[in-house]
Amino acid sequence: MLSRGSPLAPEHRAWKTTEPFKSVLAGDRAAMAKFTMKDLEQILFVTHTGMSTAQFTAIVKDWMATARNPRWHCPYTDLVYQPMLEVMRYLRANGYRTYIVTGGGQAFVRTYAEQTYGVPPEQVIGSAIETQFTENAAGDAILMRPPKLLLNNDFSGKAEDIYLFTGGPPQAAFGNAAGDRQMLEYTAAGGKGALMMLVQHDDATREYAYGPAEGLPASKIGTFPQSLYDEAKAKGWTVISMKHDWKRIFPFDR
Amino acid sequence: MLSRGSPLAPEHRAWKTTEPFKSVLAGDRAAMAKFTMKDLEQILFVTHTGMSTAQFTAIVKDWMATARNPRWHCPYTDLVYQPMLEVMRYLRANGYRTYIVTGGGQAFVRTYAEQTYGVPPEQVIGSAIETQFTENAAGDAILMRPPKLLLNNDFSGKAEDIYLFTGGPPQAAFGNAAGDRQMLEYTAAGGKGALMMLVQHDDATREYAYGPAEGLPASKIGTFPQSLYDEAKAKGWTVISMKHDWKRIFPFDR
Repeated sequence: MLSRGSPLAPEHRAWKTTEPFKSVLAGDRAAMAKFTMKDLEQILFVTHTGMSTAQFTAIVKDWMATARNPRWHCPYTDLVYQPMLEVMRYLRANGYRTYIVTGGGQAFVRTYAEQTYGVPPEQVIGSAIETQFTENAAGDAILMRPPKLLLNNDFSGKAEDIYLFTGGPPQAAFGNAAGDRQMLEYTAAGGKGALMMLVQHDDATREYAYGPAEGLPASKIGTFPQSLYDEAKAKGWTVISMKHDWKRIFPFDR
Repeated sequence: MLSRGSPLAPEHRAWKTTEPFKSVLAGDRAAMAKFTMKDLEQILFVTHTGMSTAQFTAIVKDWMATARNPRWHCPYTDLVYQPMLEVMRYLRANGYRTYIVTGGGQAFVRTYAEQTYGVPPEQVIGSAIETQFTENAAGDAILMRPPKLLLNNDFSGKAEDIYLFTGGPPQAAFGNAAGDRQMLEYTAAGGKGALMMLVQHDDATREYAYGPAEGLPASKIGTFPQSLYDEAKAKGWTVISMKHDWKRIFPFDR
């Protein structure tokens, strides 16, 4: 999956100094071994344009079937949070529709969201490039993926895209980073009964610990700033500690 | 609802020569009396920006409750096709999700689609302007409507936006104009069992008659060209005649 990175690099000078591309171009295997799911998504997203939507899906499915996370030695789709699965099941059992709203690539996440989270493609809202209707040599309609961003589903984009896809604010929203702030504010604007929750990655032993909120180590990826923590406390949003509140993190934990 | 048209006109010189704006600016009441639902949508869509999504919805709902169609002397929401309601109910009763995919404004159609067609907001795909996350004076999150087009849901846009919203082609698609061609081609590309249908407005007595396909009068709005008719016949798509195939057109017909 990373093999397409290098040929495209001359057009993208910024990649030389920006993670996760920098590590790929430098061939830094140690750094690449630490890539998060989000890093991998980002690389896939920017390198897999100029093909049809069907070709893209096939590449993702193939990669999903073979790739293994270097820390847990398992497929990436096994690295889902047990409490997240439980709350989504609970909500669905009570008549709610559950969505995944991700800064990651929408077409990427849709390939595994149904099997992994029980969320069908039309309930995945993510960053998206434009597609372009065209016909192949046989005259059949196909959609191509030009390298042109349509939706940047992070920060304000999360609130805006939830409105675009559903027509209004959700009744509950769960986040874990700075890019979720506007989504939670938009959810709160829905009025009484709205539920806003944030998960803090504060368990270096069982998962990761980063912030920099509350003295946790700083992180350039998935940053959870003190300002978000303070806003949550001031507004009565629940901040969940993975370390203290989650009995199991992954389904394979004992 | 039309009152906002004139103040904005200086910025939009093309409106002076383009329908439906031309008739509004000229104060041509006779021409305005013949406006279709699509004309009205278009005017609403371009004139009601620069406000919040909630303000826009309130204006549409208010207009819906009071406006009357000058030919049938009824609310616009009564002017729905009985066979369309029946086929949507039939599909839903058999486990299908039904969508409205419209060249009209998504936010506009969403205000009445659930009550009128049984289609919830998240299953309405239409033309959409961008929204902009911001906060009001009280610090509450609101989405504003800047005058910037995000999705032009017509022609190729219909196929592209169906993919954007749902992740793949539908199993059946129904159109009635040139702007539906790519949607039907994309549906056909889904493979065996796909159903493609076109409705032809050929009943001047009970509704309207226009084409110019098959010798019907030409129309600048909702054009159904001969090329679309020929493509349908060549590919085995069903062309439905409102005049010959529809027993009732509107629910209030006997």
